[in-house]
Amino acid sequence: MKIAVSGKGGVGKTTVAATLAKLLAASHKNVYAVDADPDACLAAAVGIPEEQIRNLKPLVDMKELVDQKSAGGGAFFSLNPDVDDILKEYSIPLGNIRFLRMGGIKQGGSACYCRENSFLNALMGGVLWDKESAVILDMGAGIEHLTRGTAQSVDIMLVVIEPSKNSVNTAKLVKQLAADLGIKKIKFIGNKIRNEKERDFIQKHFEPDEILGFIPFDDDIWESSMESGPAVELGGDLFRSMKEIHEKLLQEVDG
Amino acid sequence: MKIAVSGKGGVGKTTVAATLAKLLAASHKNVYAVDADPDACLAAAVGIPEEQIRNLKPLVDMKELVDQKSAGGGAFFSLNPDVDDILKEYSIPLGNIRFLRMGGIKQGGSACYCRENSFLNALMGGVLWDKESAVILDMGAGIEHLTRGTAQSVDIMLVVIEPSKNSVNTAKLVKQLAADLGIKKIKFIGNKIRNEKERDFIQKHFEPDEILGFIPFDDDIWESSMESGPAVELGGDLFRSMKEIHEKLLQEVDG
Repeated sequence: MKIAVSGKGGVGKTTVAATLAKLLAASHKNVYAVDADPDACLAAAVGIPEEQIRNLKPLVDMKELVDQKSAGGGAFFSLNPDVDDILKEYSIPLGNIRFLRMGGIKQGGSACYCRENSFLNALMGGVLWDKESAVILDMGAGIEHLTRGTAQSVDIMLVVIEPSKNSVNTAKLVKQLAADLGIKKIKFIGNKIRNEKERDFIQKHFEPDEILGFIPFDDDIWESSMESGPAVELGGDLFRSMKEIHEKLLQEVDG
Repeated sequence: MKIAVSGKGGVGKTTVAATLAKLLAASHKNVYAVDADPDACLAAAVGIPEEQIRNLKPLVDMKELVDQKSAGGGAFFSLNPDVDDILKEYSIPLGNIRFLRMGGIKQGGSACYCRENSFLNALMGGVLWDKESAVILDMGAGIEHLTRGTAQSVDIMLVVIEPSKNSVNTAKLVKQLAADLGIKKIKFIGNKIRNEKERDFIQKHFEPDEILGFIPFDDDIWESSMESGPAVELGGDLFRSMKEIHEKLLQEVDG
């Protein structure tokens, strides 16, 4: 199962992706949680220490190895090798979850992240990932990953929304662009919901079966956001809501 | 005066940029407010109707015109022509503010925004802008615009922070990358501050003279974010704080 998490900046993509990775760890043999945002913070969201994250080799560094093995073609991707063995060098393990990042930090003014996005796209499109595993991509804010087509081979795109007009507008745009890419399933998650009015606001903009669930606003997450540590552990409401979303997700993709 | 507004997704870059544009309109003859985020919402933040925004030609469309006039070189940029006349076709006026956008919406999977960023960079580096005008760029979330160097010729980069570890980490990375670009002045604005603890948290991470000011958390802005209309008009506290920040900014750049 390959999942991408998308949406406007600040809506809670990383919190949703990190929590979902933990839940998928119970339903799948392996979970690959990939931070596809150059401004990466997925691994930090589950409490992996900063120093360990700093030393994590980005996936794009695999490109040379792949080019060598396949002489530039995509042959490597169809070998269906032992993924975990290959990715060991490019990931931080946490139980049966492996955290990976698309790209590293570059110097100011040195380059875009096109090469990184294009390599991740190739990697996702390959048969590298076995059927018992789940792959979850935490995308960068906004829409450029969609015009680039980075996540075009996922089974489902989840779009996180908060109750604001801007975030709904972005979500509608993401839906349109994801459809351009041929992604068949696009579902929405309403986050930071404080009351019925905010829930209604989101429901007004989408069909009932487009919405996978709602997550209440959680003061604990806001309070803990100044500290280091596993922010996603703290939110009781978050976990309860995400558990329902996880179940619906399994039905959506398997059904 | 050329200003860029940067920071992690969701910290309030667009709110700060829109408010600052309105304040700069009082201190400068012309203000060019440029939305440099493909997922654009700067014009909407001051209440420009969606239909008008949809019809706005992106700046990148000027590229062909420029290429024609200068046969591919940068000659056009040094002509110092009547900017307002040239930009009329690519902007929406609001008093002496003109709203522009870097790029338009593309199809999913069609392209990156490298061409748009590179053209905006060239445009900003030219002498197109006269001394009596202010140009304010609302950058995309995260760090890619910095590794691309889109805003390298601004006089000052403002980095918006909210009281969270992730947003502080991004701000520190922005500072480092902006220094790589040779941007001399990099200042921070603390946004969504609810109490002393949150203010202290931000102060702990930066030197006192690096912080241009603080903006209190404003429930009205949150409440109004579900509606269309000029969100930035509603925040009394926002305007008061931004007025002080505007004054400090003028001192910083002129002094």
